[in-house]
Amino acid sequence: MSDLLIGLNLAGTFAFAISGATVAVRERMDIFGVLVLAFITAVAGGVLRDLIIGAIPPAAFENWHVLAITVGAALLVMCANRLVRRLQHTVQLFDAAGLGFFAVDGTQRALTHGIDPIMAGTLGLITGIGGGILRDLLSGHKPMVLRSGFYASAALAAIALVLTARAVGFPASGAIAIAAVAVCFLLRVFAIYGKWNLPSAPLQ
Amino acid sequence: MSDLLIGLNLAGTFAFAISGATVAVRERMDIFGVLVLAFITAVAGGVLRDLIIGAIPPAAFENWHVLAITVGAALLVMCANRLVRRLQHTVQLFDAAGLGFFAVDGTQRALTHGIDPIMAGTLGLITGIGGGILRDLLSGHKPMVLRSGFYASAALAAIALVLTARAVGFPASGAIAIAAVAVCFLLRVFAIYGKWNLPSAPLQ
Amino acid sequence: MSDLLIGLNLAGTFAFAISGATVAVRERMDIFGVLVLAFITAVAGGVLRDLIIGAIPPAAFENWHVLAITVGAALLVMCANRLVRRLQHTVQLFDAAGLGFFAVDGTQRALTHGIDPIMAGTLGLITGIGGGILRDLLSGHKPMVLRSGFYASAALAAIALVLTARAVGFPASGAIAIAAVAVCFLLRVFAIYGKWNLPSAPLQ
Repeated sequence: MSDLLIGLNLAGTFAFAISGATVAVRERMDIFGVLVLAFITAVAGGVLRDLIIGAIPPAAFENWHVLAITVGAALLVMCANRLVRRLQHTVQLFDAAGLGFFAVDGTQRALTHGIDPIMAGTLGLITGIGGGILRDLLSGHKPMVLRSGFYASAALAAIALVLTARAVGFPASGAIAIAAVAVCFLLRVFAIYGKWNLPSAPLQ
Repeated sequence: MSDLLIGLNLAGTFAFAISGATVAVRERMDIFGVLVLAFITAVAGGVLRDLIIGAIPPAAFENWHVLAITVGAALLVMCANRLVRRLQHTVQLFDAAGLGFFAVDGTQRALTHGIDPIMAGTLGLITGIGGGILRDLLSGHKPMVLRSGFYASAALAAIALVLTARAVGFPASGAIAIAAVAVCFLLRVFAIYGKWNLPSAPLQ
Repeated sequence: MSDLLIGLNLAGTFAFAISGATVAVRERMDIFGVLVLAFITAVAGGVLRDLIIGAIPPAAFENWHVLAITVGAALLVMCANRLVRRLQHTVQLFDAAGLGFFAVDGTQRALTHGIDPIMAGTLGLITGIGGGILRDLLSGHKPMVLRSGFYASAALAAIALVLTARAVGFPASGAIAIAAVAVCFLLRVFAIYGKWNLPSAPLQ
């Protein structure tokens, strides 16, 4: 993995953990709850993907690095909640980059394990949105990603780019991965500033 | 697998996806949420079973067929919500057949993987009701199957028939499977029209 | 496993199942719901641990013993709800011993499967608290363990003892396991009677 991809992985893990910890503080969980929600938000999607593709133990349990990042994020949110909120836009940028990385990396890991391309893309999506769904369930909310905000669509665009490049036999998969993360990142930024939403189906 | 069993599998997957999509539309989820809830409702029980018995990747991730069925069901619900509601009784019949198939098929897959018969039956039950439980959690409701409607009991009767036939050494496992699905189907139909419920324990 | 550890395992499984069944009865679930919640509360943490470390099938699905214990606990709660409530303190003692056993046993199983020590401890914690989290979600509540009661801290203390003894090369792992369970048990008893809580982070 190139340095850029490692950086994206760290940024994504950190941003997802920040979002879990922020929700936990807002929900008045205790210190332990904040740590747990930060960890779960950052790793749940990838753990589910790894269980499904048979990558045992899941990447987040191979060593303590991911745990350490999420504990750091949780402590930061608890000790400097006001600072974190002032940096909310920066965190959203990290989150957008992380979402793209998780979706692309999840898709590629599934492909490496011989999963059918369409289902590998589905697993990339699970990697990107699984943690946020569990964060919302554990804090007593309906999952936001199923309701609004164009969040998953940005991940899907990145996944579609990876799968298309593979289908047409484009050779430089590293370059495609970075381009796909950039697509997701930009779509997220446009969606946040433009308040894009997917329509919901009419009730009729 | 005989043509009949393939048909039951399709009917069950389709009916479960319809039920997930219908709940998602009623909950005002966006288009993406409807797709996700249709897919999760149809596959979650089977995926959990396959993770537990070590069938990697789970059947729903082996190819894109199940995903395609659930996407079709979700689009149908979104585009023709009124039609789907008018066909509610037909969907309930599909669901009853699907529940029976999932319970019986889940039990047999677990037995094939060398699981103890009683726990194989438990995994058949998980296959049948897991998706509905997750559908209810993700849409902010308490799982219906734990509260009312004789739903799980019909699946349990089918599973009991499969395990009993196996214990007494009955040879034709295909015929037993179809009989067990029929038992579940008929019990569900009687329960729906007769408004059967299991008692809840007295609070005292 | 020594007789003492087998007894702790039984006590823990039984107490966790009692707590699941008690919540289910209070929530007015039907008989089937009470059985399901008893089983899930007792096994969910261990099943998730086994999936992550690759112990297939998970211990709870290897035979029907754990299922039988949880069914027994559920029937006891349904038939003798008043008695169970009168014995609430006894159940809490069982639960405290079971929590310690699950946390220590989960950590040791993960170590046996070659998991990094810190992450093995994390898996011990998941073993101890996973079932209770799912019990709360399925009954429509926010997970108690993330909010109050010093519950997880007692498990963490036991896990820390196991990992420290291992790091300094202490030989008698059986004795350490029993000491660690005792630490968790005593901390829980003190916490229950002293109403200890972890602080929550200030909202600022």
